[in-house]
Amino acid sequence: MATVAVIIADMFEDSEYSEPARAFRKAGHTVVNVGLKRGKTVRGKKKGTAVTVERAVQDVSVEGFDALLIPGGYSPDKLRAHDAAMRFVREFMERGKLVFAICHAPQLLITAQVLTGRRVTGWKSIIQDIKNAGAEFVDREVVEDGNLISSRSPADLPAFIQALLQRLPDV
Amino acid sequence: MATVAVIIADMFEDSEYSEPARAFRKAGHTVVNVGLKRGKTVRGKKKGTAVTVERAVQDVSVEGFDALLIPGGYSPDKLRAHDAAMRFVREFMERGKLVFAICHAPQLLITAQVLTGRRVTGWKSIIQDIKNAGAEFVDREVVEDGNLISSRSPADLPAFIQALLQRLPDV
Repeated sequence: MATVAVIIADMFEDSEYSEPARAFRKAGHTVVNVGLKRGKTVRGKKKGTAVTVERAVQDVSVEGFDALLIPGGYSPDKLRAHDAAMRFVREFMERGKLVFAICHAPQLLITAQVLTGRRVTGWKSIIQDIKNAGAEFVDREVVEDGNLISSRSPADLPAFIQALLQRLPDV
Repeated sequence: MATVAVIIADMFEDSEYSEPARAFRKAGHTVVNVGLKRGKTVRGKKKGTAVTVERAVQDVSVEGFDALLIPGGYSPDKLRAHDAAMRFVREFMERGKLVFAICHAPQLLITAQVLTGRRVTGWKSIIQDIKNAGAEFVDREVVEDGNLISSRSPADLPAFIQALLQRLPDV
């Protein structure tokens, strides 16, 4: 089974955390909430879903994780202003570990400068940012490009989650 | 005196609307709130400041305006997904009319594809997006590049407002 880091801050898109996290746990995987401050409770932007940060991003290594999930909403905008969060995300990408990005999540990959030449999708407001980063924007519910799997919005969650579960090691 | 359009949507940074708008009106200028739907009340993200949209962006021309103010917060993220808002912003820039941008406001200029070769500042989370758009990011409280005046955050408001008032026609 896999251990999945979720990098998260306030104003995340509730369902983009809750639904994949629930599906991962149900399938027997472990989910670890990584954020800016250990013990802090961060909240979703629509429903106020509470998530407790279990590990501070500056104190964790990618070593212990098989995959990284980046929920959308305005959480990525907050995280991308912090160097430690950028280092964490960059290391997943540079090592070719699984990265699951939905909605505004590509904002983190842009600031980490790891999108050049990649195929990716995301929320419509950031399409120009994705293109300017040197990536190919693809308007599909799930886009798989090697270790990077991306979707556009909460409406894509069923297909997104199905794709993610297929990629996580199940033994 | 001048007529200033403010392009605004929900979750704007309260002070980045309230303080310039108050200063403009006090100096005798006219402020017109332009948004996605006429009559809608949009709200600030921190204090819930209520602003009523007086004109729908798809129904207005830049003709009647001397300048455009773009407050930050998450309002720019919402506006940049709408073509009519992008056309409005682009026309100000293409005609060389005054554009006042603070915080996340450059996101609109990126999607409107009018930042290439310009000198601009903005909120730290979007620095890489500004650079990727072909602009020069300058880390100063006020950056003036021809018709485009920009600042980074609410802390820059006093200097930002002073610079804007100097640029608006006072007769």
